[in-house]
Amino acid sequence: MAERLVVIGGDAAGMAAASQARRRRGPDDLEIIAFERGNFTSYSACGIPYWIGGVVDDRDALIARSPQTFRDDHRVDVRLRHQVTEIDLDKREVVARDLTGGGEVRERFDILMYATGATPRIPPWAHTEALGVFGVQTLDDGSALRQWLDGEPRPQRAVVVGGGYIGVEMAEAMIQRGLSVTLVERGDQPMSTVDPDMGALVTEALDGLGIDVRTRCAVTGLRVRDGRVYGVDTAEGEIPADVVVLGVGVRPNTDLAAAAGLPIGVTGGIRVDLRMRAVGMDRVYAAGDCVESVHRITGQPVHIPLGTHANKQGRVAGLNIGGGYATFPGVIGTAVTKVCELEVGRTGLLEAEAEIAGYQFVTVVVESTNRAGYYPGAKPMTVKLIVERRSGQLLGAQIVGRSEAAKRIDALAVALWNYMTVDEMAGLDLGYAPPFAPVWDPVLIAARKAVDAIHDGR
Amino acid sequence: MAERLVVIGGDAAGMAAASQARRRRGPDDLEIIAFERGNFTSYSACGIPYWIGGVVDDRDALIARSPQTFRDDHRVDVRLRHQVTEIDLDKREVVARDLTGGGEVRERFDILMYATGATPRIPPWAHTEALGVFGVQTLDDGSALRQWLDGEPRPQRAVVVGGGYIGVEMAEAMIQRGLSVTLVERGDQPMSTVDPDMGALVTEALDGLGIDVRTRCAVTGLRVRDGRVYGVDTAEGEIPADVVVLGVGVRPNTDLAAAAGLPIGVTGGIRVDLRMRAVGMDRVYAAGDCVESVHRITGQPVHIPLGTHANKQGRVAGLNIGGGYATFPGVIGTAVTKVCELEVGRTGLLEAEAEIAGYQFVTVVVESTNRAGYYPGAKPMTVKLIVERRSGQLLGAQIVGRSEAAKRIDALAVALWNYMTVDEMAGLDLGYAPPFAPVWDPVLIAARKAVDAIHDGR
Repeated sequence: MAERLVVIGGDAAGMAAASQARRRRGPDDLEIIAFERGNFTSYSACGIPYWIGGVVDDRDALIARSPQTFRDDHRVDVRLRHQVTEIDLDKREVVARDLTGGGEVRERFDILMYATGATPRIPPWAHTEALGVFGVQTLDDGSALRQWLDGEPRPQRAVVVGGGYIGVEMAEAMIQRGLSVTLVERGDQPMSTVDPDMGALVTEALDGLGIDVRTRCAVTGLRVRDGRVYGVDTAEGEIPADVVVLGVGVRPNTDLAAAAGLPIGVTGGIRVDLRMRAVGMDRVYAAGDCVESVHRITGQPVHIPLGTHANKQGRVAGLNIGGGYATFPGVIGTAVTKVCELEVGRTGLLEAEAEIAGYQFVTVVVESTNRAGYYPGAKPMTVKLIVERRSGQLLGAQIVGRSEAAKRIDALAVALWNYMTVDEMAGLDLGYAPPFAPVWDPVLIAARKAVDAIHDGR
Repeated sequence: MAERLVVIGGDAAGMAAASQARRRRGPDDLEIIAFERGNFTSYSACGIPYWIGGVVDDRDALIARSPQTFRDDHRVDVRLRHQVTEIDLDKREVVARDLTGGGEVRERFDILMYATGATPRIPPWAHTEALGVFGVQTLDDGSALRQWLDGEPRPQRAVVVGGGYIGVEMAEAMIQRGLSVTLVERGDQPMSTVDPDMGALVTEALDGLGIDVRTRCAVTGLRVRDGRVYGVDTAEGEIPADVVVLGVGVRPNTDLAAAAGLPIGVTGGIRVDLRMRAVGMDRVYAAGDCVESVHRITGQPVHIPLGTHANKQGRVAGLNIGGGYATFPGVIGTAVTKVCELEVGRTGLLEAEAEIAGYQFVTVVVESTNRAGYYPGAKPMTVKLIVERRSGQLLGAQIVGRSEAAKRIDALAVALWNYMTVDEMAGLDLGYAPPFAPVWDPVLIAARKAVDAIHDGR
């Protein structure tokens, strides 16, 4: 008799697991049922801001594989608009509510894949039921927001709350749609995902786009009339708004998991082992934005919700469910984004994170260019390295530049992954030709400067 | 009394050494004399094709630091148009001919820095004294070529002999100047610095530029009338030419070194130790295109003339001359270039090189895109990995793409440098956002595919 895999959550992690498991085990050997609360499977949540902004025209372009593809090609019984409400690990069954037809279904499982993703943090002041207030976590969220922006009366003024990646990307998207935009950030500056000195360059770029950036500004409430939002209250007064986008971060969506007794870690994410099994559980896997990962530099658990991790983790889970062997080696906090023409990349620890982790470190910042200075189109590029004071081990790196900059973080990410010291890095054989780099690559200049800084400090 | 450093060769390696030595030792402690045969110091030879093509307007933009700067700021006694003709290691002196004024000078040295670079291979059929025939090794070569191209009668037809990096870049430069161009390559295809399957994409790009590419075509002679070249003879007939550019490669310029008894390796380059000292010699350093390096993957000596190595090696030599400690860790064969919009990157071994080194290997090639497929401007990108069959260790990688492609080789170069296996690489935390990569980075897709290939082969 076939075993049964039940997948909770039909996005990247869940469906990557389902398709990998299917690759190794046919339908006669493994039955797969996937419950998805929304209307879509396997889409690029990270692409939503670009679709909202009109950079990407077609919503369906964001969908990697449709439910029908999973049903036909992968023989996965995908059940959309089904919300799992209970997991019984003793009876090994789940209960799901049919959000369309109503009613409840129960399904037994041999193997469980928990991949419910993350949920936007809802601040205490937020009336998410008010019309005109949106998160942008799911494609359904995105659809609702786009409809609102196209509706009448046509929204003119947007307030984006929160200056993280999503907030910044959404602020730009709103500008691209012709709205006037205020970005409200509680902290000292937007993009706290890089150090303040690098983040200042982002703030500049946002200013350049005409975005009204309000920092150290706490939102205290929403103004709602006739069920529609018309403003945001802050400590410094009201900001008028026809649409409010919440980008205040997400938390692992683990309520159901916690109720069922799955192990929850200090970050709020599910604890998993190297093979993406929930720690201590029998044939229960978890992956994606609902789990926590190990940071390879600090060794500490972290919650870094990103599509690339979700895909990798889902694949690892699926390979193991399929009888193979694969492990997820942890993360190092690499991320890239852009604001208008400004590109930002980071990997490893920020200064504040290195501090918390207990490192003594030096930092170096170098200004260089992405191409040979004399080559047309050469643009400034700033590289920052954070380096353990004694060993010279790279702890973190950040790059800000105008073009061909962000993805250069990858070379630093691989160096960091391999625990390289800046001494070793200064000798790296990186690609050189005038259209692509100065003869001393900015990464090498930064490494050299860090070597000097450390030797002076000895 | 001050010691004296004599530098032979005033380009990247020699002058990097001079300035690093100066940083650590003042003029009272170390006198520095630099002999340079040509008219320039410390310039970007790699930039010459772009200056010839008019992409870079100003010759002086290629000069990193002028002789006067070295004299004034670094207190280096730079003697231009002085060709060293003899090194006497017993007497510890050099003899140099003054190419302008005539006559000879003798200078004693305590420390010698040999940095004479490389010389273009001159095929037996070449009359380099014929007008209209040029190498492009030095800035003086470039100046002469530019003058010829601007002269009367205005050259219309160019033949570039040799399809390596320089040949391909020069062919494009000639097209940019409005000449009709024939590229003659003895081998099966131009750009033999990548595997044939990747090189085919380069040939396509050259065709697209309107360059007449003749492969398996051996040049047998030049046609010269009244001292001017007017054609190139090949086994398949004559090709008319008003200008002929030789890009048939270079050899380490070691005649002088060999005569003086410096150790010459199997590649023809000077053998040096980790600190860039000529092996077995007392206080004699060598760096740049005249030395051989260790390839970190094969452990074999290689001669890879590149400005980036010359700069690094010169700096290492200079630090050691200055009383510091620095080592050059070897090379892994990383290189990048572009042909029109086509970008090419490579690192490590080609298939043929892996074969010669004795590896059993598998190769994988993946077609992907530089950005998320749905993001505007997404362009195709091909990634090839060469992987040791048993261990899964990365041996080589090549990338060909349309934009934002070549420098991605750096992440692979760092992986290779650290002897990563494709299993490890499949888990790498690389930067992801739709404007910069698909959710599965092409590098990760390639690594995954290689993992599959290896496991199937076991």
